[in-house]
Order: sequence, then C-alpha cells, then structure tokens
Amino acid sequence: MVFAPTGLVTLTTDFGLAEPFVGIMKGRILGRLPSARIVDLSHGLPAGRSDLAGFWLGQAWRDFPAGTLHLAVVDPGVGTARGVTLAECGRQLLLAPDNGLLPEALRGSAGVAWRTLDPGLPDRLGLGRLSRTFHGRDLFAPLAALLAAGELEPADFGPRASAVDPRPLPRPCRTDDQVQGEILVADRFGNLISNIDAGLLRGLDSPGVALGAHDLLLAPTYGAADPGQPVAVVNAFGLVEIAVRDGSALDALGAGPGATVVIRNCGGHTEG
Amino acid sequence: MVFAPTGLVTLTTDFGLAEPFVGIMKGRILGRLPSARIVDLSHGLPAGRSDLAGFWLGQAWRDFPAGTLHLAVVDPGVGTARGVTLAECGRQLLLAPDNGLLPEALRGSAGVAWRTLDPGLPDRLGLGRLSRTFHGRDLFAPLAALLAAGELEPADFGPRASAVDPRPLPRPCRTDDQVQGEILVADRFGNLISNIDAGLLRGLDSPGVALGAHDLLLAPTYGAADPGQPVAVVNAFGLVEIAVRDGSALDALGAGPGATVVIRNCGGHTEG
Amino acid sequence: MVFAPTGLVTLTTDFGLAEPFVGIMKGRILGRLPSARIVDLSHGLPAGRSDLAGFWLGQAWRDFPAGTLHLAVVDPGVGTARGVTLAECGRQLLLAPDNGLLPEALRGSAGVAWRTLDPGLPDRLGLGRLSRTFHGRDLFAPLAALLAAGELEPADFGPRASAVDPRPLPRPCRTDDQVQGEILVADRFGNLISNIDAGLLRGLDSPGVALGAHDLLLAPTYGAADPGQPVAVVNAFGLVEIAVRDGSALDALGAGPGATVVIRNCGGHTEG
Repeated sequence: MVFAPTGLVTLTTDFGLAEPFVGIMKGRILGRLPSARIVDLSHGLPAGRSDLAGFWLGQAWRDFPAGTLHLAVVDPGVGTARGVTLAECGRQLLLAPDNGLLPEALRGSAGVAWRTLDPGLPDRLGLGRLSRTFHGRDLFAPLAALLAAGELEPADFGPRASAVDPRPLPRPCRTDDQVQGEILVADRFGNLISNIDAGLLRGLDSPGVALGAHDLLLAPTYGAADPGQPVAVVNAFGLVEIAVRDGSALDALGAGPGATVVIRNCGGHTEG
Repeated sequence: MVFAPTGLVTLTTDFGLAEPFVGIMKGRILGRLPSARIVDLSHGLPAGRSDLAGFWLGQAWRDFPAGTLHLAVVDPGVGTARGVTLAECGRQLLLAPDNGLLPEALRGSAGVAWRTLDPGLPDRLGLGRLSRTFHGRDLFAPLAALLAAGELEPADFGPRASAVDPRPLPRPCRTDDQVQGEILVADRFGNLISNIDAGLLRGLDSPGVALGAHDLLLAPTYGAADPGQPVAVVNAFGLVEIAVRDGSALDALGAGPGATVVIRNCGGHTEG
Repeated sequence: MVFAPTGLVTLTTDFGLAEPFVGIMKGRILGRLPSARIVDLSHGLPAGRSDLAGFWLGQAWRDFPAGTLHLAVVDPGVGTARGVTLAECGRQLLLAPDNGLLPEALRGSAGVAWRTLDPGLPDRLGLGRLSRTFHGRDLFAPLAALLAAGELEPADFGPRASAVDPRPLPRPCRTDDQVQGEILVADRFGNLISNIDAGLLRGLDSPGVALGAHDLLLAPTYGAADPGQPVAVVNAFGLVEIAVRDGSALDALGAGPGATVVIRNCGGHTEG
C-alpha cells in the first residue's frame, strides 16, 4: 500500500476559469514535472466553500487510478497561519489546506494516513518567498509537482497529525422508522443531492421521500417519472437525490441546499 | 479506411464544469488507458439537448486527426432502455447514446458505418453494475477507453444498425428565388447561427438576408459593418450567421434560436 | 537565449467553453503535433477585450517553462487586414493578432524580439483558404503547432516589426506624495485589481488606500480584516488589490473596473 506516483494530478479549486489562476498553477507544475498529466475536477465551486469542495472531491477521487495525486485549493485562509494537509489513502495522495476539505473528502474512508506540512519544508525545498494571496501557485503547485514526480516522499512532507474539520457538512439522522437529512447541493441540472446515503434506508420497505410539501416515491431511475414531474432516486454516488424529469428540481420545487428531506415507510398518496 | 486508435479522445457533454462529472469520466478513462490524450469539446451545452450537442460535434469532429474517438454524453434517457451508438467515419469513431445526437453530428457525411451496442457486452467486459444516473462514468467512459486503446474493436461493439433520430434539427427550405431557414443557436458572442448552408445560396446573385424587421446584405466579414451595426456573413462552418460588429446580435436584434431567416435576391434598401 | 520548443502550448481566448471553438483549435494543433501538451489559460475573457487578455496573459506567461508557446486569440478584427504578431522573450514565444494584446502582455519586459507575419507565409505553408470568421482554427492553430513543433523557426515567421497598441490599459500616475491609479478588473472572487504596482509605493511610509468613500490601510493579507470587511493588499501579481474578506468587494463596495484608486501617506482614521 505504498504510493507510487504516475504523474497524474487532479485539480479542484474555487478559482473559476475566467482568469488564468488555474493555468498558472499548471505552468508551475509542468515546469517541475514536464510529463505531468493534469485533470480538472472542478474550478467552479462556490468561493471559499471548502466543505463543498471536500464533498465533491470525495465523490470523485476513487475513480482515479493508484498513483494519482489530488490537489484541492479552496483556501479562504490563504496567507494566514493555516496548515497544509497531506492524506494518503488507497495508494493515492490528497493535498489541500488544513481547513476541513480533506476530512470531508475522506469521511468514512479507512486506512487514511494524515500528515501536516513541516513549516520549514518550503524553505528547504527552495520554493522562495510565498505571496500572501496565491499559495495555489507558490506553495501547492510545487508541492504537488514534487510529490507527483516522486521527488518528495510523503514521509518527508511532515509529521503525522490529524486534520482540522471546523465546518463539517450536516449528517443525516436515522431513527427506527425514518431518516432525516438535508439537501447539500444542487447540481448543474438542478438535481437536489441530499446527504442521505442509500445504506441508511435498509429496513424501510417502501421508502417515501418528503421534501417540503412534496411526497415522492423512491424510483429506480429518472425515467420513472413523467416529463416535468419530480422523482427521488438513489444517484450514482449512492445518495438520495430529488430530480424533475427533463427539468430542474431546484427551479420547480422551491427547495434548494439546506432544505430538510425526510424518508419514511410509506403507504398512501404519493407523487412520482 | 480502418480505424487505428491513437489514444486521442474528445468529450462533449451537458454536464457543465461546476461539478466534477467530467473529471470523473476522465479518471475512468485514464485508469484504463493511462496514455489517453483527452480534449474537451464542450460541456456547456443546454441540458438534455442531444440535437444541439450533435450540431456542435458535427462542426468539430472533422478537425481532429484520424484515429480520434469522440465521446458525447447528452443523455436524458440515462437509466432507461435507450441504446448506445457507435459510428465509424473518416477513420474516426463517434460514441453516444442512441438519441439522435450522432445522426445530427454526421448529417450529410458519406461512408458512415453504424453499430449498436450488444446489450451483453458490458457484462462480458466486466464493467460491473451500472448506476442508473451516470452512464458517462459507468458505461461510456470505459467503452471509450477500450476503443481508444484498441482493446475493443468496432466490429465487436455490436451489430450494424441505423441510429434513431427522434428530434432532428429543422432544415432549411430552398425554392427558386429564396431560401428559408431559422436560427439554431446563439454563440458566446451573441452571433446568431442559422441552419442555412452557403451551398444553398448558389444562383442568388445578390443575396439579401431578412431576420425579423432587419434586412442585411451578406458581407464577406464582420468588419464590413460599422461598430454596433448588424451584418450577415457565411461563417467558418459554412453557415449563414447574423452578427453585430463588436456587439451581440442576440441582445441587439430581438431575435434568437427559432427565429426565421429568409434569403432572397436583393436590390433596394438594406442595412449592413 | 534561443527558443527551443517543448511542445507545451497555452491558449488564451474570448471564445468561452459553451461551444467547441477551443476544442476545434486543439484538434488542429494535435493533428499537426500529436505530442503537444495544451494548457488553457483562460477562455472567459470579455469578448473582444484584447487589452484585458493581454493583461492576464502578462500575469501568467512567466510561470511557464522555457520552450512554451503562448497562443492568444482575442480577435475582433478577424477577417480584416490586421496583422499577426510573434514575440520571443525569455526563451518563450507569444503569438496573437496584432491588436495590442502582446504589447500589453509584455509591457516592461526586456529583450523582446517582435516579428510580424509574412503575409505570404500561410500560402507557402499550405494552410489553405482561411475562413473570414475563425482564424483561431485556420491560421493561429496551425502556426502555433508548427512553431511548437520546431518546424517553423521564429526567424522564418516574418520580418522584425514593432506591434501596434491602439488601446493600452490606463497607467497609474505617481507624484511626490501619492499614486493615482484605477481598478482594471474584478476577478472571480469580486476582488478589485488595480493597475498600481507595489514598486510605485516606495517612499510612502504608511500607505493608505482610497477607493471612492472607502479609506483602507494596506494590509499584509486578506486575513488582516474581519469577515465582511474591506482590505487592501499587494496581491500575488505585485498589484494593489481591494478585497472584502470572505466576500466580494465588487458587490460590497459599489466600485468596479474604471474606479479611481488613490494611495497616499496616511495617518488618522481608517477602516480595515
């Protein structure tokens, strides 16, 4: 279970693509590791929302092969004394500011080895003076390149240490006869993704999903609803999701992130 | 005229870039084919509009070298029984859900060999259980990787079969003295792109373009108009396009997708 | 100081990512140079603003290694007789329409060798007939591929010639006791980036920053302000920037591009 780098690096930021911030990071990575293969995961995350960046990185990192390094820079504390976290899990590395992003991404993962950056390492690596506003360029990109090149071993990154998690995403609550959770995010299609993992539904024979005034049956696929009608499904990440077929649940249902979702055994009257 | 894969893969989706859906597909492709070179064509297409995805893929695919595989996933029927189509044309491959996307992309192309996915193939390839909501990850990415790696031959994909085209884009109509078409899309600049191919204008000596109340001469270039004035040109895709110089025709002319465009021999009073 | 190409190409355009224009350019580059490594700098620049494209390219290009070719296509004059400029600087190449983009990107750079495209070269290279609306595809992509492949030497591109700069960005003005500049752009976070380089602040012992009715101290980092409060910093590009901590200065301060910024020695009452 040793990390053997392959030069594959993913990037997750809240930098957007309108300015060349992400491109600049790639330039710094390619300057140190010309053979790097760089994949964008997302750069359109809400500004400063390290928790949501962690959520999405958590849905994505397992789909990459062993030897991948995942760099995530959502860093509202840039320039302050916040730490830097490296996590090794499943023969992959994840690197991010120590602000809760990686604990969210790795929630429930077994066998994570956590390290925190030795504050003297950037100087010893010759990274030069860091700007106060763009550590993605000055600190994270070179660290990622060195780790992905195998020139910096995880063991030399810094001491073992647990990561902070100041703002964990809300967790669902399971009682005997129901699960209560909430909508975490609306995706590009207006689908409303909850924090309720399908594993929590065991024992609910005929699960009915309540979102505000909407009562929905849990269906196998979007196509189970008529066009324009709402439907609840277990999505590809194993989470309960409320969608509107060929439409946007976010627009149509008057509910978005933060809305309560309740799932209970259901008879009676339902939509969907 | 045999397809010889080069590891070059293009992606066209309606997934957007705010969430890591596209990045996840790339992880799955790179896991099977580490040497894949992946190019994004567009991920900002209107949700579910397989016809427009086909239109844009149709403008783009010929600009890639032989040996390229083009994967397009605009898939409102995900999780239902819709088929999967593979087309071989010009020593390139195109792979998409069987919903009309590829017939639109290949309209007018000669020598297309169409195949439909053998429903038993995913199992035989060991792709595992598919989610109901993200076949881009579970089905299309691995198929694309196998085809681009040369590990799956087109002939083994499934039987020859024509593809469905349930919602073709509207076609222009040519009579003796005029061509009537419509605006298909507005691009990023607010340029209005019609479905009228320049080849249809043969025999119109002095073509005048009417869009709503606007009468325009067909000019050789945007620069033929004064700044802020509308102009009609044959664009780089061979289609008649209405633009406003240094501005947005979409905003300025009160017309957008669906608007009728008529081109006829023209004397008299014109703008542009 | 000779340019030795490495196959690394960056792209900067105002084409957006909703349509496949950028992908098409990549196809044309990869068709001529299959080993090209292509990095996106930005495609979300305001349409036609070659000056801002130059500004951002100027912040980015030095972060790439020697042997990189930077292609920038913001080209409102496409199809007209505007020239094409190649600049060699620091063992990198920059290629763009001759509209002021590269002079802005290279302002203050020493040792730039400027060339203008020999109008007969595209024909001699066999580039075929150019469209009137998409020289990114027909002219710039093949030229970039040939230069990045080492198949076209800068010396063969065309004669030495200075580049036009019809619309330079405004410059700051330094007097004995103050610097006056203006906001050039708001970035993705709503941070307001001025044209005032930190080097101009020498001799101002306690610089106070005035933006409209807001008086701010120049702080070392965003974190010096309380959440929701404005702060001025020298950003990672060496420019004075006004931000709101954990918020958007663009939204909160009622000021944006074009607003006047004055920096002078400051005692007395300040926010931030």
